Amino acid sequence: MRMYDIIQKKRDGGRLTDAEIRWFISEYVSGRIPDYQASALCMAIYFCGMTAEETTTLTLAIRDSGEVLDFSGINGIRADKHSTGGVGDKTSLVVIPVVSSLGIKSAKMSGRGLGHTGGTVDKLEAIEGFKTNLSIEKFEAIVNEVGCAIVGQSADLAPADKMLYALRDVTATVDSMPLIASSIMGKKLAADDDCIVLDVKTGSGAFMKTLENSRELAELMVDIGKRAGKKITALITNMDAPLGNKIGNTLEVIEAIEVLNGKGPEDLIEICVALSANILFLADKGILAECEEMARKALTDGSALETFAKMVAAQGGDAEWIYHPEKFPKAAYSKTVLADRDGFIARVDTEGYGVSALLLGAGRNTKEDVIDMTAGIVLRAKTGDFVKAGDPIAELFTSREETLASAEKKLLASTVIEETKPKKIPLILDRVE
Amino acid sequence: MRMYDIIQKKRDGGRLTDAEIRWFISEYVSGRIPDYQASALCMAIYFCGMTAEETTTLTLAIRDSGEVLDFSGINGIRADKHSTGGVGDKTSLVVIPVVSSLGIKSAKMSGRGLGHTGGTVDKLEAIEGFKTNLSIEKFEAIVNEVGCAIVGQSADLAPADKMLYALRDVTATVDSMPLIASSIMGKKLAADDDCIVLDVKTGSGAFMKTLENSRELAELMVDIGKRAGKKITALITNMDAPLGNKIGNTLEVIEAIEVLNGKGPEDLIEICVALSANILFLADKGILAECEEMARKALTDGSALETFAKMVAAQGGDAEWIYHPEKFPKAAYSKTVLADRDGFIARVDTEGYGVSALLLGAGRNTKEDVIDMTAGIVLRAKTGDFVKAGDPIAELFTSREETLASAEKKLLASTVIEETKPKKIPLILDRVE
Repeated sequence: MRMYDIIQKKRDGGRLTDAEIRWFISEYVSGRIPDYQASALCMAIYFCGMTAEETTTLTLAIRDSGEVLDFSGINGIRADKHSTGGVGDKTSLVVIPVVSSLGIKSAKMSGRGLGHTGGTVDKLEAIEGFKTNLSIEKFEAIVNEVGCAIVGQSADLAPADKMLYALRDVTATVDSMPLIASSIMGKKLAADDDCIVLDVKTGSGAFMKTLENSRELAELMVDIGKRAGKKITALITNMDAPLGNKIGNTLEVIEAIEVLNGKGPEDLIEICVALSANILFLADKGILAECEEMARKALTDGSALETFAKMVAAQGGDAEWIYHPEKFPKAAYSKTVLADRDGFIARVDTEGYGVSALLLGAGRNTKEDVIDMTAGIVLRAKTGDFVKAGDPIAELFTSREETLASAEKKLLASTVIEETKPKKIPLILDRVE
Repeated sequence: MRMYDIIQKKRDGGRLTDAEIRWFISEYVSGRIPDYQASALCMAIYFCGMTAEETTTLTLAIRDSGEVLDFSGINGIRADKHSTGGVGDKTSLVVIPVVSSLGIKSAKMSGRGLGHTGGTVDKLEAIEGFKTNLSIEKFEAIVNEVGCAIVGQSADLAPADKMLYALRDVTATVDSMPLIASSIMGKKLAADDDCIVLDVKTGSGAFMKTLENSRELAELMVDIGKRAGKKITALITNMDAPLGNKIGNTLEVIEAIEVLNGKGPEDLIEICVALSANILFLADKGILAECEEMARKALTDGSALETFAKMVAAQGGDAEWIYHPEKFPKAAYSKTVLADRDGFIARVDTEGYGVSALLLGAGRNTKEDVIDMTAGIVLRAKTGDFVKAGDPIAELFTSREETLASAEKKLLASTVIEETKPKKIPLILDRVE
């Protein structure tokens, strides 16, 4: 087999065989195919696409390029959720305890964040003592005991994806549906789950800017998951505004705890309940309406909070912080951002809000950057709210005072205030199963 | 400027600016742009194309990536011809002496061959003592004195082309019209000629298999040449059969000498006269018909042969060989290939004939291969000729007897004998000016 022939075949619109795709991935990972051939193939895929079969094979080859986990030692149905990423998305911190409190097991492996804010494991590290690198044995034991655990992704998981993503990132070949789907699902399938619920974000703060693209990606990933023998559903959710009112690592953990206490913002509750209900539904816990009811109850009766606190304690964190979030360290500096005119918040550039949080120190620009756990934004007004000139629209928090001015400027530039009240867009736009 | 943005712009069908194209070439040559980004850009160009302006800028950037020659020390009009390459193409050995004998100067730099047979400089090295690496001063002096000289291409000429071609060759991005045109013309424009005649081959033995593609390439190259201030014309000539009757280095020099003696095969004479006439026409020597007459006369009156012999002598070769071609060493082994049935040679796979010559040792498979100067093929019957079973269709020559069987097999497999006489296709199919 020759890489040249594979590139040429795809360039000419041909369909790659399973053997060709698997050969490419295994040779690329072992360093026998140079980056310049891999990038040419990625660009050919960008233009010519891949069939669902090709994409599934690519996904499985990526999965098989590294360690594929075996969690048969965990008793019960194993489930996971995955979000394509958005600003203020702390749903994992709520959904995992909710479903675990209802008998589902979740051995969740999560990535670190690069960009606006940290990933789920970064956020959890805002809790004093919380360990995100556990041995597989310890990880399994906690899941069996508590019902869930959340750790960082093993370096051995889907190395082909790491290599390909790094290459695509510098060769303008990220925006290809089969390459995006196989990247996400290749990692996801390396974990040993029975049920998967995907949260595909759409809108100004999402990777996919249009509903059409988001739906296409969701359908493709659900198709791949089914072909790989998983129970899988995707929700397409709106990311035209940040999720919840808090952005930033410590702030997001605190907001997740609010929701686990039966409080917190409506939008965040709605998505957390929907994601949880869909996992419960896939695990045959009832019809969807019943599953929603169960999820809401787990938030109001304190059972999900208790599961979360147990998980935190089992992973070395101080569970007292969960019951007393006022223990979290606070930022040294803050600033209130004021509306500069009367009117409705007509729309926001969600990505701009993310950049504002990044400027404050909540995220990483490069892998080496250290996150400021206390940094972030608390929104005081969201899309659709009426504000008067001088009313607070957000509070900024940081350890580095000098970042406040540029973060404020970015946030204001990302907020559009107009006279007319904007039309309300549903939060959950579609469901693909 | 960022390479990522340039790739993305081209990927999205955008038009690159002069600054972007020149920056890409200069950064790539200096090693600051990695191959994986360059190959992604080449694939994006493959799919999205380039405008004539972009292609011209790319051509000039390739030209300027290395040494750009200054032949202002040569008195008179300087001309060159360039062929896109074909089997049995020895026209340079005839055309350059013809036009030089008529007062045109030609300081020709030619490449070595990789493939079927050697390039022009390889062929000339079949002449005992002939030197193809001269200092620029010596090169200029010979051109001023004799009218022409032919040397190997300087390693400093258009290094961007060498790098890009090597990359395209392994990433399935060779077949792109703007990349082909800029590669050929980038090298061509680095030489300091006033007039250029291009011989764009079309058919089974050519890089461009269809007349349509050949015309597109010819028009693009003529356009680039004009934008660069050159007088330029392209002929599109048929390569559905080898040119002339001899294939192989020594054999081709001998056939060129035959033509320079006013003899030789009709097809070769026709193309040599047409190419020479077009150079003379560009150099304002008369109307095209007059220029053809002058070229034919130079072949029959011995003046072109004399110029060739003088050039050979000036470049260290034994001019006696030109007047007495029987002095060329002969191959140790030969074999006559016989027709296996009665009929007309209906068509041949010209590339197959080239491969047969390569098997005999006439060309290079890799840059390190040493050419067998005596190896090659003499055709005894060509497309349109009637043969009886057992009639000779070709003679094979080689220093390595063991190659005869496979070369014969390849030649026979590349020859189609049928009952019906094939339609004659004109040799010169179009002219682009």
